[in-house]
Amino acid sequence: MLTPQEAEASARERQRQLLKPLGSLGKLEALAIDLARIQRTRRPAARPAAVLLFASDHPVWKHEVSAYPQAATAMMMTAFASGGAACATLARALGLPLQVVDVGVAEAYSTPRGGSVVLRRESVADAETGDLRTEDAMSESVCAEAREAGRRAIDALGNEVHVLVLGEMGIANTTPAAALAAHVLGLPAEALVGPGTGLDAAGLERKRRVVADALARVAGTAADAALQRLGGREIAALVGAIERAAERRQTVLVDGFIVSAAALYAVTERPEVRDVLIFSHCSAEPGHARVLERLAASALLDLGLRLGEASGALTAFPLLELACRVHAEMWTFDDAARAVGGTGSER
Amino acid sequence: MLTPQEAEASARERQRQLLKPLGSLGKLEALAIDLARIQRTRRPAARPAAVLLFASDHPVWKHEVSAYPQAATAMMMTAFASGGAACATLARALGLPLQVVDVGVAEAYSTPRGGSVVLRRESVADAETGDLRTEDAMSESVCAEAREAGRRAIDALGNEVHVLVLGEMGIANTTPAAALAAHVLGLPAEALVGPGTGLDAAGLERKRRVVADALARVAGTAADAALQRLGGREIAALVGAIERAAERRQTVLVDGFIVSAAALYAVTERPEVRDVLIFSHCSAEPGHARVLERLAASALLDLGLRLGEASGALTAFPLLELACRVHAEMWTFDDAARAVGGTGSER
Repeated sequence: MLTPQEAEASARERQRQLLKPLGSLGKLEALAIDLARIQRTRRPAARPAAVLLFASDHPVWKHEVSAYPQAATAMMMTAFASGGAACATLARALGLPLQVVDVGVAEAYSTPRGGSVVLRRESVADAETGDLRTEDAMSESVCAEAREAGRRAIDALGNEVHVLVLGEMGIANTTPAAALAAHVLGLPAEALVGPGTGLDAAGLERKRRVVADALARVAGTAADAALQRLGGREIAALVGAIERAAERRQTVLVDGFIVSAAALYAVTERPEVRDVLIFSHCSAEPGHARVLERLAASALLDLGLRLGEASGALTAFPLLELACRVHAEMWTFDDAARAVGGTGSER
Repeated sequence: MLTPQEAEASARERQRQLLKPLGSLGKLEALAIDLARIQRTRRPAARPAAVLLFASDHPVWKHEVSAYPQAATAMMMTAFASGGAACATLARALGLPLQVVDVGVAEAYSTPRGGSVVLRRESVADAETGDLRTEDAMSESVCAEAREAGRRAIDALGNEVHVLVLGEMGIANTTPAAALAAHVLGLPAEALVGPGTGLDAAGLERKRRVVADALARVAGTAADAALQRLGGREIAALVGAIERAAERRQTVLVDGFIVSAAALYAVTERPEVRDVLIFSHCSAEPGHARVLERLAASALLDLGLRLGEASGALTAFPLLELACRVHAEMWTFDDAARAVGGTGSER
């Protein structure tokens, strides 16, 4: 197996040889080179790939920081399992398996028998959690447990998966994501707080105050306690999943604001994680650009998406696949020279 | 069959009902609505789709306005037919048929026997053409013939094709495209001239002077003669193809700078053509943004592509497909309410 540096150099050299002006396929070239480095191979592949969602509710919801009732999280679990949600539709269109891990959905939900979507509830989903405005979002042990659930989900997918499409669901979870990102970035609440799935101006102001209060409460906290004090179980699970994927050299295709906040936290703890992250899109959520900037990330797409559920990462997945196919299958200039000197029929 | 307005209203209403905050899928929602309007149906589809390339050489090449020799056009014909070119790789990855129409390739080329790519040479390919710097690029009859070849290519694909992925190949063809676009937009040469596939500073200055001379030569020419005086056979064929697709209410997925220049000209002649155009990407060629601006077009992708060969349109194609799949298959809020009240197994 090549080192990441060898693989990157080899892929870069191949891009130089392909039958096109160097650089003329822009980010598709860069993507192929990135995937080669992550996979430590000359010829990277986007498949097999898998979609993994983590879902949880949040006590901070009670401050009316979301346009939707908490019950919407449970309803979406039914929609995921039944294949009716956006992410399920996108995953099906792309031929990718979808797994949803419940690490804290508050209300009961029904699931259909015999659906193709795998849905699993982890025991941490029954733990007590706190309102991050006035108390820690999770105890140390709950945070560690959620993180471990994320790591386990990656291990359960096995070694064959090259690309992990990570997403989340949880009504009100842009609030903990904004609080966590603001703390890590050292920015005030207003720099990270946005309308999420559709807050009005009054709701936005409530949310800003909640995040500002949470930030004041944890001021001076070391970075490595911020996840437990400000995050949520799905965010902690995402951090664990991202760390584990990085250890396994699997590519993480990051969705929008919330997964990016988890990625930011993971990179803060372990900078080497950054190497396996590909950022799929720039969300309409205004704080997302700040997070991407700190991670020196240039997102692939900018389509005004703000749904979550891995919808942005799924929409970007074909770009990874096309980049790998072009990298593997295109002629080099040498191939073309041989063909032109060859035995085809002349017109 | 619905009117375009009825179809658009119906698709817009469906987007309002789908199980997501309205607008949260951004341009994917807009795409589904656009495709519904073009196809005059409640449930648009991106497939069947087909990729159509028009290829030609240009006497203006002799002014060294390209980084590549004229023979590269013929070599690329072999690479298209053999499946080794970028567009052939992308089309194969997407499962789309690729046809290449030669309307003026100067040099002989070989084609493999039994390839899956259809390659056809039109009689207009043998016509005399001019150096647009000092004389008209085409006679009226050659221009009309090339345009007709484009219309015929659309008709030959039949009624079943919903989306046409249009592209081009022709060494030096950013020069006629820049001249045509500058004339239509009423802008000086420097606003539209760029490095194409890789000109250096001296080449860029040569190209600017060629375009400036051509613009001075045709100053005062009516818009509808500009194509013949400044264009090229593949650009005229693209204009014909775009017009015909619009008559047939087929969606045209526009590639980069050159196809956009053809689209600009087609819209100038017949404004109703604009309705079927979807712009796939913003090219690294600096003049492209000016053309998109005049067409009030917001491109789907911005990946720094500048290869041509429909590579940008092919890269954007999955977005159309995903938009249609989400539009057709996602649950509505009513579907979700029924499921939640239904008979699934409660956890």
